[in-house]
Parts: sequence; structure tokens; C-alpha cells
Amino acid sequence: MSASSNEVRTVSLDKLFNPRSIAIVGVSTKKAIFQVGGRAVFDHLRLHEYPGRIDLVTREPAVIDGVESVTDLAMLEHTPDCVLVSVPADDVFPVVEKALGLGCRSFVVITGGFSESGSDGAARQAKLAELVAAHRGAMLGPNTTGFVNFAERVAMSSTSRISAALAPIGEIGIVVQSGALGSALLEEAARGGIGLSHLISTGNEAVTTLADCVDYLVDDPATRVIALYVEGFRQPDRMLEAARRAHAAGKPIVVYKTGRSDAGRRAAAGHTGALVGARGSYEAAVRQLGWIDVRSIEDLLPVAHYVAQPGAAARTMGIITVSGGFGGCVADALEETGAVSLPTPGPATVERMRNDVPAFLSANNPVDIGGTPFRRPGGFAECLDAFADDPALNAIAVANTPIVPPWGADVAEAVKATHARTGKPVSVIWPSEIFNGEALRDLRAAGTPTFTRVDTFTAAVAGAAALATARDKPSRLLREGRSNSTPSLDVDLETLDEAASKSFLKLAGLPFPAETFVSGMDMAKVREAAETIGYPVTLKGIARGVVHKSEFGLVAVALPDTEALETRAAAMLESADRNNLEFEGFLVAETVRPQAEVIVGLGLDPEFGPTLTFGAGGIYTEIMQDVATRVLPLDEDEVRGMIESCRISRILQGARGRPLLDVDALVAMVSGVAALAPRLGPDFAGLELNPVGVGLAGEGAWPLDASVFKARCSA
Amino acid sequence: MSASSNEVRTVSLDKLFNPRSIAIVGVSTKKAIFQVGGRAVFDHLRLHEYPGRIDLVTREPAVIDGVESVTDLAMLEHTPDCVLVSVPADDVFPVVEKALGLGCRSFVVITGGFSESGSDGAARQAKLAELVAAHRGAMLGPNTTGFVNFAERVAMSSTSRISAALAPIGEIGIVVQSGALGSALLEEAARGGIGLSHLISTGNEAVTTLADCVDYLVDDPATRVIALYVEGFRQPDRMLEAARRAHAAGKPIVVYKTGRSDAGRRAAAGHTGALVGARGSYEAAVRQLGWIDVRSIEDLLPVAHYVAQPGAAARTMGIITVSGGFGGCVADALEETGAVSLPTPGPATVERMRNDVPAFLSANNPVDIGGTPFRRPGGFAECLDAFADDPALNAIAVANTPIVPPWGADVAEAVKATHARTGKPVSVIWPSEIFNGEALRDLRAAGTPTFTRVDTFTAAVAGAAALATARDKPSRLLREGRSNSTPSLDVDLETLDEAASKSFLKLAGLPFPAETFVSGMDMAKVREAAETIGYPVTLKGIARGVVHKSEFGLVAVALPDTEALETRAAAMLESADRNNLEFEGFLVAETVRPQAEVIVGLGLDPEFGPTLTFGAGGIYTEIMQDVATRVLPLDEDEVRGMIESCRISRILQGARGRPLLDVDALVAMVSGVAALAPRLGPDFAGLELNPVGVGLAGEGAWPLDASVFKARCSA
Repeated sequence: MSASSNEVRTVSLDKLFNPRSIAIVGVSTKKAIFQVGGRAVFDHLRLHEYPGRIDLVTREPAVIDGVESVTDLAMLEHTPDCVLVSVPADDVFPVVEKALGLGCRSFVVITGGFSESGSDGAARQAKLAELVAAHRGAMLGPNTTGFVNFAERVAMSSTSRISAALAPIGEIGIVVQSGALGSALLEEAARGGIGLSHLISTGNEAVTTLADCVDYLVDDPATRVIALYVEGFRQPDRMLEAARRAHAAGKPIVVYKTGRSDAGRRAAAGHTGALVGARGSYEAAVRQLGWIDVRSIEDLLPVAHYVAQPGAAARTMGIITVSGGFGGCVADALEETGAVSLPTPGPATVERMRNDVPAFLSANNPVDIGGTPFRRPGGFAECLDAFADDPALNAIAVANTPIVPPWGADVAEAVKATHARTGKPVSVIWPSEIFNGEALRDLRAAGTPTFTRVDTFTAAVAGAAALATARDKPSRLLREGRSNSTPSLDVDLETLDEAASKSFLKLAGLPFPAETFVSGMDMAKVREAAETIGYPVTLKGIARGVVHKSEFGLVAVALPDTEALETRAAAMLESADRNNLEFEGFLVAETVRPQAEVIVGLGLDPEFGPTLTFGAGGIYTEIMQDVATRVLPLDEDEVRGMIESCRISRILQGARGRPLLDVDALVAMVSGVAALAPRLGPDFAGLELNPVGVGLAGEGAWPLDASVFKARCSA
Repeated sequence: MSASSNEVRTVSLDKLFNPRSIAIVGVSTKKAIFQVGGRAVFDHLRLHEYPGRIDLVTREPAVIDGVESVTDLAMLEHTPDCVLVSVPADDVFPVVEKALGLGCRSFVVITGGFSESGSDGAARQAKLAELVAAHRGAMLGPNTTGFVNFAERVAMSSTSRISAALAPIGEIGIVVQSGALGSALLEEAARGGIGLSHLISTGNEAVTTLADCVDYLVDDPATRVIALYVEGFRQPDRMLEAARRAHAAGKPIVVYKTGRSDAGRRAAAGHTGALVGARGSYEAAVRQLGWIDVRSIEDLLPVAHYVAQPGAAARTMGIITVSGGFGGCVADALEETGAVSLPTPGPATVERMRNDVPAFLSANNPVDIGGTPFRRPGGFAECLDAFADDPALNAIAVANTPIVPPWGADVAEAVKATHARTGKPVSVIWPSEIFNGEALRDLRAAGTPTFTRVDTFTAAVAGAAALATARDKPSRLLREGRSNSTPSLDVDLETLDEAASKSFLKLAGLPFPAETFVSGMDMAKVREAAETIGYPVTLKGIARGVVHKSEFGLVAVALPDTEALETRAAAMLESADRNNLEFEGFLVAETVRPQAEVIVGLGLDPEFGPTLTFGAGGIYTEIMQDVATRVLPLDEDEVRGMIESCRISRILQGARGRPLLDVDALVAMVSGVAALAPRLGPDFAGLELNPVGVGLAGEGAWPLDASVFKARCSA
């Protein structure tokens, strides 16, 4: 679908996203109520005062808004840094080809009619991508609405929303896989006074992809937080590398992901595949990459804005409110996230507040100050300062309902001053867009995280806490990345049967319980096998056609020594004789005494590559829906953490007087399965160990059955 | 805490909430930047053009805004319908006493310093409440901010937010347990153009309570939907009756409930009490009362506005969008709620759209129309009409991102026209508050449900679906109410031991497995007992001091007939003899063979009264966290539904090749427990049957152990 990223990255995206000169090919000379295509881009660049040079290429010579056009790119005296292409789909290839010939290497193709419009379009796109990639060029689109570089005033976008006032210049770089969504986000940023560095719409991603754009923003000094609207991650390995670079650069990535009901995901192999569900791998990736997932598109920018603040990842918070009711709503919602605690303010804090807060109001956390502090100048500021100076409180939230505008002005002043003095994050939650509009605008202009909804605020606080957790203890995926590349999975799957699955996995190095088949009745060999495996052993008599061995006395579990082994073997031969069975031999096996059953699976996620799933086994697999998924690679600590995150771990750990089971052996075994993943061959598509038995502490953990899934044809 | 509701309801609340004349006692004559108390109420009434008569009572005679005040209520020539009291806390009683003497029966007391401010205040409040109740008066407050009756222009509120433009007049009646939250909601309504009928802040609810206000709105012709902000339901029985009346009147109730971490709730009795958790009973009540619970305070009014539309409870929906990406976000979010399906439009619909929608765009659901239809006049309207005329689609959602304002105007016109023509609900989700502000204002003025957030829209759709479900099949609680009143539970609990619990419950009529103790060795009595109970029976030999009976062969399960009974009895006697046991007699018992264990509990919720909890038993109780709670009474269908809502029911129903268990017997047993509740006496505080064994289909279900909780002192 897209060209190899290694080639693409040979050209820096600087000339694409920060061009000193632009040529627009395809500009309408007609008057229109509103302009579209190249003419819209030209108008938008002018409107937002693009400081560089703009050349226009039109069919007929013309003068547009004071700029004299040319009729051919070759007529330009210089090579533009970036060429915006807005010509009919069939003309795009020759235009790009000519530009490449003139030395241009950066393109924005806003024309549609490519892969989004059927097989002809897809072929057209493939040809274009090949051309650009062969020249190591960069290309946004086709079918993109373009981008805006806010600090450099490059409003290189055709979308009509750009014709109005933009959002303020700021630190959030946005990449979207839908231009229309980009417009909606720009609108949200403008309304909420949230500053942006870039807004990039990736279009069809024929050459330059989402991962490339993230990579660019990681290097961009103006960008401090990266916000993504994602319909699909098309390059797991590239995306992983971009995420690792963002982590290293300390730039948070905040994501809204749609396409949850992805058909490809539904087709995931095996039982565990189905259990992981549509969002399982995505949530695993988010956690392991230290990303922040927002569940409402409208929360994307407010959350990004919040986590951009130094100190946002606070573990404790103080809430100061004019309304006990509203403060309680905020406290309840924060408590539900589990992201921060609300410690009681110290006696010195309460003492300082008591000058302004009547005794019947609660000087706890939330502190309900009522209206009294506003009755003297500086009263509210003193309360806020007292709160912010409390060493137990890492961050402060001011939770207001509508208050009279002079009080509102006091709040805005005090919040700005306290934040400036203490450096602590001070946020405002204030559902009073009209009545206290002036104070809210004042706060927004000062960059204060300002919320009109409780749930958006709590999403931001939870996001900051998730980020802190990921930074405190980076996952192995973040630390080491992934060495081998992820195979694609657009293929039919074949399931190997138990025997074939087990022998494949044994070859790959996964230990199953030891067992030896001794053909015939050779007791010396049976004894030898038992000694090799080690007592206690389990002995099974194998007779042709006999499935329910125990009905014929052909199973003996946990034989302690040679004597017991021989006695039971003789009894089995006798039973076979008595029942006219055709006796074939003895199976001598390690005695496993599973006390609980779990399942372990490996899968290949179409967006995130190899994953490992662990869960409750047996009948409780489906009933408890108790599984955890992680993207590989994993270290033993992470495997232990994932087991502990399942409810079944309480049984493993001996809940309610049950015996403690061998969690260490289970962790080792699951880690071993995780380590297999890179060694299972190009047609490996997944495996499922179901059940895995877990013995008493010290006894072990054993895969008891296995299914391996293979790609029917290598993709 | 509050006076008995029966007395209160003897006075209609009409004079309180729709007074023809008002006296305000306690009006400041001073100039101030902003007024408070009685003076603020006076200003607000004037500002919003209260059409009735206003009298002012001040300390000194004055003329305020053209109204000549009096210095004593007794000086008024007529009896005001409603008296607003804004005097110091200690003066409230004499003012109200005097007014009652003059024949006034409705009061709004905005003064604070009552139960919210410690024990002195609580005593002051109790005295005041007693006075008003003795005269069968109505009183909002004390410590209320008052109310607004929008249609009648009664802005009887002291809160500063009332000094600005109010929300439009409409159909939503709001009752809040926090005046400040009321301000925030008013702000939200004004911003979103959502029409209100009433906004009532209940204050301390000394006399007139939340339930009374809901009752009033049920009868109020201007109110079509009731929206509540609730910190605590103080009168379960009154609230239940109000909810039933609302249901009968077809008026939806939408609730935001805070105080989730209620300490009283945490102290719930027993194991099941802890499992129900903070929100369990509330969620049960919401479901059974057909209420709509919103999880974000900001969604309260938009959801209420949405469900006020005729036809809101649609089961299918069509999404029409200018952006595939945004339409996908809406579709994903709707799919997650499970509230509506998105059927494919019929061929006739697609055919009609194809004139305006290019072939490469998806004419599915969502239908992505792109921008093409806007290029001819009426193009968008034709697409929308085609969609709305599709009989498979019960409701339409228009999902837009920012579009050029002339197109925006087309959208607004078309939405209004299509809704007017077809009567189908047409909603708009359009995150474009600035760029398409004019179109949004136009839509809001027309009453179209208009959303700027996807999550608020999906909350509204899910709420409408929940309402439809509750109306299709009203719960027994809604149908019949509850005959006996709910005891309060501010007491210590005592737990009866197993024997005492069982005998208490047997007396109350709960059947335990039948068993008879036959003292000594009287085999005739043993045979008689076995015949009475019915074979197969279980026989146990009871010997002094023997706990592990089976070690001495003193347990025989499922004896099929007299012969087996006698043989085993003889063997037990022999064993007792051989082991020198002091034999005491035989326990002859019904044979129970539980195949699965569940738990059943009764509790008393402080807000919703008697509840029943069902869940998985044994070790899985805590690990699976698999419980369902319902408020009593329940019918058998509801009991069956609650069992089916638990994951354990898949085991009961024979998942994965397991045998089918006796769900019918379990339903009958649990229904029997539910029916016990009203008969368990005034000091009954809860019971827990743990475990309850469930046998194979046809065998039965049996309580195997029981704990009964009693109130140590009757409250």
C-alpha cells in the first residue's frame, strides 16, 4: 500500500512542512463565493500571511491577487521547496514527474480519485508512489487536505475551515487520517484557546505516512506533545520506532483511535484471538508505548494541552471550589479514575484559609470556600496560595460554577499568579462559558488548562498519570524495540492438529511434560524411561482403539517407585489380556498435577504485530472473560504483571485458604512462549496453549494441549 | 431529617412555584456592585419581568426600584402566595410563624446556617420544619438559592447567574440538590439553546423535598422531561411513588447522581453487601424505575432534551455525513452502546441519493455524501429526504465537520424541513461551534437536538433506548410499587449464627433441604423419616465430638431404598461401636447434589430500601465479581433476567458440554427469598444464603448455609 519507509526517510520532511517557497499547480482563476482546491490553498496561505514565495501554475496566464501565474512549472526561475498539486487525477503523475525532473522533492497532492475510489485509483496511486519513492521524495496525500504549520504561518490546506481565524500558536502537533476531522479539531482548538504547532492531514499515505509525520514532529522544536486521530496503523514497525523516539524525546503521544470494529481484527486466529477483542491489542500497545488513549475525540486536544505542562503527572491533587456540590462531582470523578489521591491539607494550610473560609465550610479536600473569600480583595488569592503551598499537594484544581464576573476576574488573576509563583500545575474546571466568559478567555490566553467539563478534566488527569507510569518503568517494547519485522497477515489460516502442533513447538524449544512411548511389553525399557523422566511417573497402557483408558485400568498416576511401576504395568497387561485388547505399548510420562488451568496464546495483530495473551482456562475462559494481552517483546516482570492483572491470579496466589500455586514456573513458561515468537518462521500465524496446567508451588506449570496456526500461503 | 411527606403534600406546591404574589422579607436597601439575598431575588424577578405583585419587607421603610417597602408582614393588605425569607438564621422562625399566622403557606428560605452548619443549625432547622409541617405548609430550603419558573417568568432565585440572560422557555424541569450546580446547568442550557420549564434548588429539604418537587413537575403541564442532580435520595418510598407517577404520565426522568463513595453504603451488611458496591443499588433502581442515568453532569440536559422528542426511542438509525472519518466515529460510538442498529439503506434510497453522491463514496450507513450534494441547490435536502423516507431508518443523525457557511445554512434548512415533513427525529452532531455557529444557532432555535460532542449524542441515544426498554416491559417495582415502608438503618448490626439464621428463615417460610434427627437407634423412626422425606436420602450418624464423620464411615449419600438405608445404618452402628464413639442418633436428610454454587442475599439500601443480590458462589464470588442487584419487589421474569445477566448463568445453562442445571428451581427459590422481604420484621437488616447449591435439571436448588443480620436496636 505504501512505499518502504527506509527510502522515504532519505528526504527530510523539512522542505515539505516548512517550505521557503511554494508552487501551486492548478489554480482556478474564476470568481467564486468560496474557493476550492489550489485556489483555496493560495487564498489561505495569503490570508494567514505566509512569509515565503508563492508561485502559481495555471492553464492560461493570469494575475491572481497580484501574483502573475505561469503556465508550466518549467517556466519558474527557481526550484520551489514544495509543490502543491491540485490538477485532475490523471494529470497528477506528469506534473509530479516534471517537478521531480526540475529537482523538487516535496509534494502535497490534494487531488482525489486515488486509492479511496476503487481499483483504477489504486493503480494510479501505486504508480505515483513508485515514482516519488524512486526519487526519494516526500509526498503528503494524495487525497489530503494539506497541513498548517502554525509558527511559520504556512496554511497549506484546502479545507474551508482555514478561511477563518486559526487556533493560537502553541505546542501541540496534530496528525489526522481525516482532513474533515482535522477541521473539527482546529475548531475545537480555536474555541478552547489551545495552541497548535502543526495540523497535518495524511490523506492516502501513498509515500509519507502517519509514522513519518510523527517522526517529523518528534524532531520539531515547536512541538511538545503529539496528538493523533487514527483510523489505522499501517506500519507497525515504523510506528513503533517513531513512538520510541517520541518517548526518548520526552514528547507525549495522545491518540484517538477509531475503526474499533475492524473486520481484519475480528478474523484473529483461535480462541484467544476472539477473546482479545477489537481493542485488546491496541490497548496493550497504548500501555506499553506510554501513549495516552482518549475515548472521546473531543477530549484529544484538552488532554494533550494538559499533559504538555511541566509537572502534569501529579500523584496528588488539591481541589478548591466555591460549591461543595460541584467540588464533590470533581472529586468523585477523580476518585473513579484512581489516577490521583486527594490528601487532606495540612494544619498550616487550613490555618491560613480560616481567615477567609467560615468555620462551617469544609476545609478538607475538596476545600469548599463558598463565597466569603471574595468579600475582601486578595481573599481568594490567599486561599489558593495557601493550598498551592501545601507540600502534600502536587497540583491544584479550581472547580467553579458560575460566579459574579468581578469574582471571576479575581479567580483568573489568582490562578495565573499562583501558577507563576509556585510552578505547580493549576487547572480550572469552570462550566460557565457565557457568564464567566471573560475570565475563561483570560485564563486560556495565559495557557492555563481550562475545562468546561468534569469528564474532560478527569480524562486529562488520568492520561497524565498513565504517562508517568510508563515513564517510571518503560516497557521492554519501549526499551528495546523489536528486531524482526512484522509479517503481514492477509492470508488464510491453517490449524495444525495437536500432535503436529506439539512437535512443531517442541522443535522450537517449548518444553511439554516429558513422556516416552515404549513399544510392546519391554519392562526394562519402561523402567529406564521412568528413571530418565524421574519418579513419580504416570503410566498409560496403549491399546488399539481404546480411548477411555481408565475404564480398562490402563492409567496409573504418580507411581512413586520401580515396584509400583512394575506392579501396575503387570496389572495393565493382565487387563488387556482379559479384555482381549490389542496391546501396543506403554506411555511413561512425567506426573503433572495441575491445580488450575490457564491459557496462553501468541497472535499476530494486523496493526501491532506479535502479541501474547494470557487468561483463565477451562470453562472460565469464556465465562470470566478474564484475559490480558500485551505486544511482544516482554520481560519477566511484565509477564508477571500481566498475570497479576487477571482475576484468575487470585486463585494462583491461593485465595481463600487454597494452596499457593507455582506462579514462578508459570511466569517462566509464559516468558518462554513470548521468547519463541521471533523464531517461529515466516508462515507462523499464532499458537494457543489450552490448557496450561499450574501445579502447587514448586511443582511446575505445563502446557497440556496446543494448537498452532500457520499462514496457508506466505504473504 | 424531614417531615413526613403525607402532611406536606396536603398543600399544593402551585402557590410555591407559580405564585401570583410574592413578599420578600429581608431586602437590602444599600447600593452594591452586585446584590445578594432578598435584594438579588427582587432584582432578578424584576429583570425577568415577573408579572405578579411583589411586596418588600425591610428593616426601615424604603423605596426600592419604585416599590415602597413595609417594615412588617402584617402591614400588607393581602396574603402573598409565597414568602421569600432572607433574614438572619435566628430571625427565620419568627418571620415564618408570623406569615403562617397571616395565612401564608408557601415559603422559600434562602438563609443559611441550618443543618448544613452543625448541630445548632440542625436544631434550628428541626424546629422550623416542625412549625411549617404543623401548618401543612410548603417550604423550599432553608439554604436554597430558590427556583425559576421559566414560562411564568418567576425568577425567584438569589444566585448571581440569574442576573444574565436565562435559557429559553422549554420542556425540561430541573431539580438540583446544589444551587451552584443549578447555575452551571442554567449556563449549559443557555449556551446550548435548551429550553427549560423549571429550575428548582431544594436546599436542605427541611419540608419540601426532592421527591415533592419531582411530583410537582409530573403534574406540571409545561414539563415534559424531568432532569435531576442528586446527592442523596432521602425518601425511598416517596421517591418511588413520584417515579411511578412520572412513568404513568410518560415523563422521562434523567439523573446525574453524585456521592458515589457514600460511607453509609460502604457499611452495607455481609458479603453480598460489599459486592454490590457503591453504585449497585442505584443502578438497579435506575433500571427498574426506567430512569436514565447520565455519567457526566454535562450530559444531563442534552440527554433530557433528546429524549423529550416524540420517537426518540428509535431502534434503528441512519447516519448521513460529509466526512467518512467523522461518520465512522459516530457509528463506532453508537455501536459500542448497543442501543441502535445501523441498517443498510434500501435500494430506492441509494438510487435517489446517487444523483448527488458520487459513485466512489459509500452509500451505506453511515452514508458519506462528501461535498457534492451541496453543489446544486436542494442537493443536500434531497439526500436527507431520501434517507429519512427509508422505512428501515427510525431516526436520522446528521454528522458534520466544519463546512463552508452557505452549505451550513443548507443543512439547517434541510434538517428543519425534513423533520417537519416526516416527523422522524433528526439530530445534528456538528463540532463547529464557531465556523458554523449561525447554522447551529438556527437549529437550536428550532428545537433540533444539536450536539457538538459525539459522546453526548451517544449518551442521549443510549438513554432513549433504555427508556424504551423500561416502557416496553415495566418492572414490578413500577407496576406495583412497594406496600410496606422502608425502615431506616442507622444502627449497629448483629449477625445470627448458622443455626439461629436457619431457624429464623424456616419460620419465615424459606425451605431448606428437609432433614430429621432420630435420637438413639430407633430404626423404625429412621425408616419413617426416610419415607417422609422421600428416597434417595442421605444418612448421617451423629456421634459426640465427631466432626469429620466420613472418616468413621458415618455418611452415606443418596441411599435409594429401605434396604440400603438399613444396611448402612447397621454399618454405622458397628463402626461407632468399633471406634468407641458415643452414638447419639441418625440424621436423615434429603439428598442434595449441588453441581454449582451461587449466593443470594437480601439487603437494605439506605437510599432505595430492600434489595436482592444474586451472584456466582464459592471462590468465584469475589474473583469473578459476578453479581446482579435489584430493588424489591421482583417478579419471576425479573429474577430470571437477573440470573441470566450474570456470567455464572452460562454454567447453569450447561455451557461447553456441561449438564443443564435446575434454573427453574433456582428462579423459584430466589423469588421465594425476594417474597420473604416484607415479612422479616422491623429489626431485619439483611440475609445471605451462601452457598446456594443448584442441582441437575429437575433436581432442585437448595440454600446450604445462611446468615441473618438484625438491627441491634430498632430505629
